[in-house]
Parts: sequence; C-alpha cells; structure tokens
Amino acid sequence: MKLYDCLRAPNPRRVRWFMAEKGIDDVEIVTLSIMSGEHKSPEYKAKAGLAHMPALELDDGTVITESVAICRYLESVYPEPNLFGRDPKETAIIEMWLRRTELMVATPIMQGVRHSHPGMAALEAQIPEVAAYNLGGAMRSLKMLDRRLAESAFIATDRVTIADVVAVASIDFGRMIKWRPDPQLVQVNRWFDAMLARPAAKAGMAA
Amino acid sequence: MKLYDCLRAPNPRRVRWFMAEKGIDDVEIVTLSIMSGEHKSPEYKAKAGLAHMPALELDDGTVITESVAICRYLESVYPEPNLFGRDPKETAIIEMWLRRTELMVATPIMQGVRHSHPGMAALEAQIPEVAAYNLGGAMRSLKMLDRRLAESAFIATDRVTIADVVAVASIDFGRMIKWRPDPQLVQVNRWFDAMLARPAAKAGMAA
Repeated sequence: MKLYDCLRAPNPRRVRWFMAEKGIDDVEIVTLSIMSGEHKSPEYKAKAGLAHMPALELDDGTVITESVAICRYLESVYPEPNLFGRDPKETAIIEMWLRRTELMVATPIMQGVRHSHPGMAALEAQIPEVAAYNLGGAMRSLKMLDRRLAESAFIATDRVTIADVVAVASIDFGRMIKWRPDPQLVQVNRWFDAMLARPAAKAGMAA
Repeated sequence: MKLYDCLRAPNPRRVRWFMAEKGIDDVEIVTLSIMSGEHKSPEYKAKAGLAHMPALELDDGTVITESVAICRYLESVYPEPNLFGRDPKETAIIEMWLRRTELMVATPIMQGVRHSHPGMAALEAQIPEVAAYNLGGAMRSLKMLDRRLAESAFIATDRVTIADVVAVASIDFGRMIKWRPDPQLVQVNRWFDAMLARPAAKAGMAA
C-alpha cells in the first residue's frame, strides 16, 4: 500500500498519527506539497478522484481518500491496538464521539484557519464572518468536550480512539492562527497535553 | 430499542429512511418537537448528553446520538440489505463517499438553511455570509457528485448505501428555502428523482 501524504495539514496528520498508534511502518509514504499545488496535478486527481489529501492506494490500485475511511480500512488490516471499537455498541459510542468531534470541533477549526490565515488566502476566498462564526462555534463545542473529559480519560472511552486522533490533529492545527483551547477548560487542556506527549504526536510532522 | 425522532429535520429523516430501506418496524418511535424545544428539556438532555436528535436508546439504557452512528449500530442488528459495505474495501469506498457527502454537501446545506430560513431565526443567530458561503459550496460539490453519478447508479456503488441516504435527506431539506439541484446537473437530478420515488422517502415525514 502507498499513502499520499503532505506535511502540516490536519487530515493527513490524522492518518499518520493513527498509523503511529498502531505501529504501522510498512506502508510506503509519498509526500506531496499542497502549497506547490501537487495535489491538483492531473496525475494525482486522476488517481484520487479529487484534489484531496491524504489518499491510500491499495495493492490492487483502488484509491481511498478521506482520513477516517483510510483509518477504518487500516484498522481492518492492522486490528491492534483497537481504535474503532470491539463490538457494535462500543463502535457506536466511538462513532458518536468521532462525529461530534468532526462536525462540532474539527471542521469549524479547519474552516476558521482557512478563512483567516494569510497563508491560506491562495487556497480560499476568505470571508471574515465565516472565520469568526466557525471559531466561536468550535470554542463552545470545547466546553462540551470539557464536560465529557471530566468523566472519561479520553473522548470516547478509557483508551485512545479515532475520536481523539481527529480532535487533537485539528485543535493543534489552530496553532496556525494562535488559536488554543481556553485555559479554563481544565479537562480539555489535561487531555490535549497528554495527547501531544504521545510519541505518535510527532508522526508526519516536519523535522 | 427506542428511537427519539422528530418530523421534518434532516438528521432524524436519515435514520427513518435507513430503517425503511431495511424494513425495520420493531423499534419504538418517540416523536419530540424541536420547535417546541422538547429536545432541550432536562430529561432529554440527561438521556442524550446533548440537545441533539435523533437518539437511539438501547435495551440496556445506553443512548447513542448522531444519525450515522445510529445507522451503523442498526446495521449490526439488521444486516440485510447491506448499506455500509460487505468487506473492508467496499466499506472504505462507501465511507469515503459518505464523508464527501456529509462534509461537502449535507453540512453546507444544513448550515445554509439554518442561516437563511426565517423560521430558524429562533434556533440560530443568522449570518447571511455564512448562508451564502455554504450554499455556494454545496452547489459546487453537486457538480462533483454529478460526475460521480455519470459512472455509478448510486453515489458509492451500484446499490443504495448510507451515502445516498445522507445525501438525499439533506438535499431535500433544501426545499425549506426553495434550494434545488441545478437542472443542468442531469445525473444528480436522475438520482434525486429515483431516491424520492423509493417507498423509504416517506418514512418519518409528516402525513
């Protein structure tokens, strides 16, 4: 298998982080540059279907994009440690938290960065109202996560799951615009520090 | 099991549609009114964790929110017909299309309606720029779906899957603001008409 990856973007980082949690080291990594537009080349778009990164090319030539679809596929090949759930009920609870995290925290932060970071102006017709709306929503959603993390070591359950990986890659991307969880969110900050202290936090980051 | 449901909202409709495709008729339905704020009652929020609908209460008292998490759980109990994939590769392809649909079509349309429909002003501090940005993005994403549907009968594969259910419930929600797929998107309109002609299209809609 071959993973088309790029440095610093939050969705590729999810997959690299996920692979590091599982100790996966036999997938070939092909690094492209988004800023140079390599993900928009005709060759890449023909392969991936869209100018989206990351993409996983299977040995039969099938190409999967979308970070969470890639991670779920990798879980089927490398089942341990488990990050998606061991039975239908646990899988449902993890997916519930994954989706809350994706839709209420990760997507708003990524939209906020895209619509406010000067370096993103080349990728997006930036709208200040869209940035403010999304960053405000993400900060409110972190209060919800803070309540959750007061009752659970990690977001979905008592071990790291895909929900934590999605959340941390996106929240840490907020660094781009100096956006950080409010220090008053004690549980979120406890969890965030613990996640960034894991060896997997360095996977796929620029040297 | 017990499903907390409401009429007309797109996320509850996904679950009702999904259940109808599978012929599930032995889950108790409890209908709440969002416009009357019944999803914000202390009793409901204590159960669901958030003021989100729908919610599935399992027989052991566990409550799952998030439409797709509920549907995946139901698939484990009622496996046929299959809507999430029969093996890891098909599951990955369906999840890729599910996520493209969710993030590029469904979420933008729902944001567009929330930020522009007069009846939603009670639920959301409406921002015209947010509505316009999201509806514009959704219309561009439908062009991508049109290309996909030129090569595939349904969004992810040759049969209806969760990706189609998520897409149709959200696109049809655009009716609220008279938002419709561009008539020039021949494949999207072919697929949309075929989906709305299915018996499941009526599930959970007001009489």
